[in-house]
Amino acid sequence: MSGTYLAHIRVSFKPGVHDPESETIDRALNRLGFDQIASLTSGKFFDIQIQAESVGAARQLASNMCEKLLANPVIETYSVEIVD
Amino acid sequence: MSGTYLAHIRVSFKPGVHDPESETIDRALNRLGFDQIASLTSGKFFDIQIQAESVGAARQLASNMCEKLLANPVIETYSVEIVD
Repeated sequence: MSGTYLAHIRVSFKPGVHDPESETIDRALNRLGFDQIASLTSGKFFDIQIQAESVGAARQLASNMCEKLLANPVIETYSVEIVD
Repeated sequence: MSGTYLAHIRVSFKPGVHDPESETIDRALNRLGFDQIASLTSGKFFDIQIQAESVGAARQLASNMCEKLLANPVIETYSVEIVD
């Protein structure tokens, strides 16, 4: 159905890629007394309202945006979820 | 129930706070031919595995981490979701 869809996009480092920012945040939380953390990863999110003909078309557009600009495919992975 | 819970945390600018990064990304996507974007916001996410006594305790710990370190309460807002 044609309309506006909200895409939730998450971009983060691929597993195995060194992520000093997450490591630093993890250590800083530990120093603040949060010793309950088993693991921590971080990344960027984008909430994009997309005008499209269908949910599938919106998802495809969001994926294309990731491939072209939002993610660096060499070191980053992304996920797209259409929430409404 | 005591165990390890995964907290999905999202941190973004409060409504009304100037966000030049999101504006720049929006314009760049437009220049690349993506003219279907009605709005775009962006921010950081943190996925944290937390050892806690209950879902409620895990959520409270995650909120405390946001207040103490992950978010700047003057200009940023955060949300916490415990997903398992």
